Amino acid sequence: MQDNYCYFNQQILPFSELSLRFNDLSILRGFGIFDYLRTYQGIPFRIRHYLQRFSNSAQSLELQLPISQEAIEELIEELLFLRVEKSDDVGIRLLLTGGYSSDSVHSEIPNLFIGIEHLHTFKPELYSEGIKVITYSHQRYIPEIKSTSYLPVYATAKKLREAQAQDLLYHSSGKISECTRSNFFMIRGNTLITPKDGVLMGITRHTILELAKDYLEIEERDVSIEELSQADECFKTSSSQLIVPVVQIDDRLINQGKVGAKTFQIQKLFAQYTSQV
Amino acid sequence: MQDNYCYFNQQILPFSELSLRFNDLSILRGFGIFDYLRTYQGIPFRIRHYLQRFSNSAQSLELQLPISQEAIEELIEELLFLRVEKSDDVGIRLLLTGGYSSDSVHSEIPNLFIGIEHLHTFKPELYSEGIKVITYSHQRYIPEIKSTSYLPVYATAKKLREAQAQDLLYHSSGKISECTRSNFFMIRGNTLITPKDGVLMGITRHTILELAKDYLEIEERDVSIEELSQADECFKTSSSQLIVPVVQIDDRLINQGKVGAKTFQIQKLFAQYTSQV
Repeated sequence: MQDNYCYFNQQILPFSELSLRFNDLSILRGFGIFDYLRTYQGIPFRIRHYLQRFSNSAQSLELQLPISQEAIEELIEELLFLRVEKSDDVGIRLLLTGGYSSDSVHSEIPNLFIGIEHLHTFKPELYSEGIKVITYSHQRYIPEIKSTSYLPVYATAKKLREAQAQDLLYHSSGKISECTRSNFFMIRGNTLITPKDGVLMGITRHTILELAKDYLEIEERDVSIEELSQADECFKTSSSQLIVPVVQIDDRLINQGKVGAKTFQIQKLFAQYTSQV
Repeated sequence: MQDNYCYFNQQILPFSELSLRFNDLSILRGFGIFDYLRTYQGIPFRIRHYLQRFSNSAQSLELQLPISQEAIEELIEELLFLRVEKSDDVGIRLLLTGGYSSDSVHSEIPNLFIGIEHLHTFKPELYSEGIKVITYSHQRYIPEIKSTSYLPVYATAKKLREAQAQDLLYHSSGKISECTRSNFFMIRGNTLITPKDGVLMGITRHTILELAKDYLEIEERDVSIEELSQADECFKTSSSQLIVPVVQIDDRLINQGKVGAKTFQIQKLFAQYTSQV
C-alpha cells in the first residue's frame, strides 16, 4: 500500500501514521459508514454524488459529519495534490465511524477518515470472461445506507470456494437485490432490468442507466429469482470493479457462459464516458 | 477510561498506546469477532467457557487465532496483575479482527486485541424497576457467532427514544430470538422459557439455566411472539448487565409493570453464585 497522505480528525499525515484506538465503535460494534470513489484522469468522478450519499448515510444513522461536504471536497483536493504518484489514478475512501466510546456502546463524536488508495487492479479476464455468482438468501440491513456491515462476505468464503464462485447474489422473499458489494443487472431482449428497492443506489449503477437509456429500454423494478432464467446477459457494477459480466448463476450458464455483446457495449460506453470526464 | 495495560499482536502496552490502522477489516467491513467476560473477586468468571466460545466464533469465520486459548488465558492473568486498580473487578475484552488488507476486502492475518476495562456501572433502578423493550423484526446474521455486527442498535436509536424503550426484542418469522446484546427469558407459572435457536449462547444464559433448574421447570424452545402475552415475568441476561427485568414489551405491561418475585429470586441466586466463585 502506498503511504499516501490521508486525513483523520483535523490531521493530514501519511496513512501509516494514522490509526484508531480500540474503543471506536466501528471496531467494537461495526458502527460505521463509508463511501468510495475514484479519479479518472486525476479528477474525482462524480464527487458531489458520492459526498451527498455519504452525507445521507451519516444522517440516517444520526452521525454528525464533523465538517461540511464542501470542506471534505477541499480536503480531497489537497490530498490528491499531495499524493505519491501524481500520474496514477487513485481511490478515495471516506469513512465515518461511530466514534470513541467509554462504555463500548455509546459515543457522541464520530471519527472522520479520508484516505487516498492505490487502485486495485483486476485481471483482464474478469471483464472478458466474466464470473460465476451463487444465489444466497439474505437481505442487507438498511441496504440504502452504505454501512461497513459486510459479514456475509466473510461468512460465506468457504461456500464460494466450494462453488468456485466469485460473488453472492442476495435474494429475499423471492426477489433478488444485489451482490455483496455491487448492483446487479440483467438484459432480456432489448431491456435492461435492475432491482430498485432494497439495494444501495450505486453511482456506477446510476451512470450505467443514464448511458444505456439511448440504446436499451430501462426497467427499474422488482426482479424475481425465477426471472433470472430468462436473462440473455447479466452483469454487476461497482465503483471499484466497474462493470463485471456475470456468466453463471448457480448451475445455470447465462448466454452459454460467454460475455454477451450488449454487456461489452455497456463496458465500452462506460469506458468512453469516464475517459472524457 | 482507565489506561490499563492491554495486549495487541505480541505487545503489552497501556490502552492509549495501542491502535489499529485504517485498513483493518473490522473498520472497513465490520469483519470481527469478540467476547467479553468479567472478574468477580478478581477472578475471571467461567473463563474457559468464554475462551471456547471465542475460539468457536473465530473458527466459524475461518479466522486463525494467532495464539492458543491457553496462551490467551496466561496473557489475561498477566494483564490482570498489571491493572491499575487491583481491588476493582474489571471487564476483559477479546477482539479478533479480519486483519489488515491491501485491497480493502481480503486479508490473511487476523489482529488480536485483549483489553482490560473498568466495569460500567448501571443505576440500581435498572434492576429494581426494569426496562421497556420494543419488538423489532430482525434476525441477527449468524447469531451463534459473537460478531461485532450491531448496526440495528444504532439504526434504531430514534425509534427507541420515541418509544421511551431501552432495548429491542428481535423477532423473525413469528418467533422471538434475543435482545440486541442479551438473551431473553420469560416466566410463565413455574416455567422458565427461553429461545434456543437463532440466538447467541450466552454464558450468563447458561449459568441462569443451571441455577434456576432446582426451582423452575426449564424450557429451551421456540417462543412465538404471541406467547409473550402469557408471560408472568420477563428478563434479559448478559455478561455486562447481568439480569435485567423487562416490565414492558411494546404497549403491554408485564406483571403490571413491576419486577416479579421470581426475577428477583433469580437475580439473588446469580449474585450468590458469583460471590462464591
